[in-house]
Amino acid sequence: MTANPSSPPSFSFDPGDPVFLAHEGGKLGVVPTKSLRGSADLALLYTPGVAEVSRAIAADPSLAARYTGRANTVAVITDGTAVLGLGDIGPLAALPVMEGKAVLFKHFAGIDAVPVCLETGTVAELVEAIVRLAPTFGGINLEDISAPRCFEIERQLRERLDIPVFHDDQHGTAIVVLAALMNAARVVDKDLGSLRVVISGAGAAGVAVTNIILRAGIGDVVVCDSRGIISPTRTDLVEHKHRLAATTNPYGLSGPVGVALVGADVFIGVSGGKVAQDDISRMAPRSIIFALANPDPEVHPMVAARHAEVIATGRSDFPNQINNVLAFPGVFRGAFDSGAPQISEAMKLAAARAIAGLVPEPTAQEIVPSVFDERVAPTVAAAVAALA
Amino acid sequence: MTANPSSPPSFSFDPGDPVFLAHEGGKLGVVPTKSLRGSADLALLYTPGVAEVSRAIAADPSLAARYTGRANTVAVITDGTAVLGLGDIGPLAALPVMEGKAVLFKHFAGIDAVPVCLETGTVAELVEAIVRLAPTFGGINLEDISAPRCFEIERQLRERLDIPVFHDDQHGTAIVVLAALMNAARVVDKDLGSLRVVISGAGAAGVAVTNIILRAGIGDVVVCDSRGIISPTRTDLVEHKHRLAATTNPYGLSGPVGVALVGADVFIGVSGGKVAQDDISRMAPRSIIFALANPDPEVHPMVAARHAEVIATGRSDFPNQINNVLAFPGVFRGAFDSGAPQISEAMKLAAARAIAGLVPEPTAQEIVPSVFDERVAPTVAAAVAALA
Repeated sequence: MTANPSSPPSFSFDPGDPVFLAHEGGKLGVVPTKSLRGSADLALLYTPGVAEVSRAIAADPSLAARYTGRANTVAVITDGTAVLGLGDIGPLAALPVMEGKAVLFKHFAGIDAVPVCLETGTVAELVEAIVRLAPTFGGINLEDISAPRCFEIERQLRERLDIPVFHDDQHGTAIVVLAALMNAARVVDKDLGSLRVVISGAGAAGVAVTNIILRAGIGDVVVCDSRGIISPTRTDLVEHKHRLAATTNPYGLSGPVGVALVGADVFIGVSGGKVAQDDISRMAPRSIIFALANPDPEVHPMVAARHAEVIATGRSDFPNQINNVLAFPGVFRGAFDSGAPQISEAMKLAAARAIAGLVPEPTAQEIVPSVFDERVAPTVAAAVAALA
Repeated sequence: MTANPSSPPSFSFDPGDPVFLAHEGGKLGVVPTKSLRGSADLALLYTPGVAEVSRAIAADPSLAARYTGRANTVAVITDGTAVLGLGDIGPLAALPVMEGKAVLFKHFAGIDAVPVCLETGTVAELVEAIVRLAPTFGGINLEDISAPRCFEIERQLRERLDIPVFHDDQHGTAIVVLAALMNAARVVDKDLGSLRVVISGAGAAGVAVTNIILRAGIGDVVVCDSRGIISPTRTDLVEHKHRLAATTNPYGLSGPVGVALVGADVFIGVSGGKVAQDDISRMAPRSIIFALANPDPEVHPMVAARHAEVIATGRSDFPNQINNVLAFPGVFRGAFDSGAPQISEAMKLAAARAIAGLVPEPTAQEIVPSVFDERVAPTVAAAVAALA
């Protein structure tokens, strides 16, 4: 058989593939937590009883935290413009990822998470839509929204809402990277604050990682995008890269990433752009490489191992998986438990310290706890709640 | 102790009241339907596996019905402007009612329902917000949105979305009223199409009840609002009442509701406005009274019983409870089962006939099935699906 060359490219998948079998019917259910056995229950849970609860909340809005699920419910919101490594695939195709995230919220932190996939639009349109639906939720987890829109969307939402707003691609990643870096520095016996760090990637994760490690006291950070080192001399910088140029690159380097890597202690890849073995070979002795692009790290861990002492990736099949699930369930659990109206910068630092502290004797093979370590979420939650 | 007269009026409630105890922590949970026991499950349900599913849906959006929960998930959307008998109490105070509705969706039809409480706004703003979040859901149940805004909001959403949009206060009520009226007509041995019907209330329920009974073949319908009979001679009519004036009141009556009730076969109250015993005493022999205001019917059923042969209310403590729960679970179940993009007028009529058909030998004490009759939702669903 010969394919008709004028027909559109067809897409095929195997419904018998374990991934598709696992997704049959979706991954979430919404279930009653109270039993409905007859008219008496109906009169309590619905009319006429429910009117009493509504009236009470109308008089005292704080009662919603006690008599609805709101205070334990987070919206997992995307517009599908930057989904995993797939890019702008739209809200419908992003839904399986948001359902997966909701599964993790429940599994690790007992939080009820509701996927909300929005048709994309301008920053103003998305902010309006999210503000309008916010009364339903106790917190907002933004997910897979493209940069630089994600920065302004989060900023405006934080300003307008009195519930936690947390863009996980930024802050979840940043918290876990900082935790890993704290322990990696101990493994290579270097002082955290004196590390020279090169970050490849100036999107959501790159910006947030930069900000958190600056706040953690690391002074020498150089950020690169696909055109090389970000510095004030560049004439092609959009707004958020201008800000990076102002806060990083203390020695005014310019050129390709290889220039920055000469003598650097740490390489953090959050871009997917490859880095050459030659370049990493010029890093300082006892160097640290976090190659976090998924599924293809910026440098293969086996290659990185020739030059660096501590290596982390985003993958589960190598040691030291940098996975946001170490952070976001506990962060929201802590915020919900304490009624915090925001996730502050101090809370993010505390979350990172809490994660790092769960590996008291870090080694090159273990700088972060396992994703399935059941102590992680409660420990992070307690650290976050303590700052509320 | 003397209350300080300058302090705001305080609201008190009893946390030990069974209603409040039943609402503690809310009434819903979001739960994984697939098990997450370790890294292998995580790789199937989340990264990297989920990327395959997202890619497949991006290539073929119809796969979302199979590999996400969307096709079995309805948003229960309100802006809290017309909640039960409480009026405009806002989205937060409406949340317990939406949670209750979601409990009913699951209990009676196995549908996952997600409360969405929106800050109110203009018709255009609400429509924009709902269209933007629609990719997440397989259907939209509008709830407790004030008239006349609800009419235009529903109309625009039906035009712009390719999923079922159903304003339950209109159509759920209308379906159950028509079902009850079909059987009541049999009890009093009158032909449905020849009934003379007076409807008190020209809001969401009044308009929808009027429309469905006109479509069911009843020609003589007179609608009254708080100022009396709606007729083209009235100069105070807003748009939706103009439309009522054009389609009802074939004999051009005017004046108070009592004028319309002289010789009428049916009184349907969906307003809460009281009707005088004198007025109902002038109805035709073997008359039918549906006094549906909750918790205080337009005329007390004991008073109505002196003059009418069949009486229904919205209350569970009298015979013949007209309750939307007889309709909406089955209507959405049928639409979801058949993949219908809309709930058509024919489907609503079919749903009413299906409900009526479950009481094959109606009596004055039983014109509709019990709310807890387990045959109702599947029977309604089958009738709706057959028309998709």
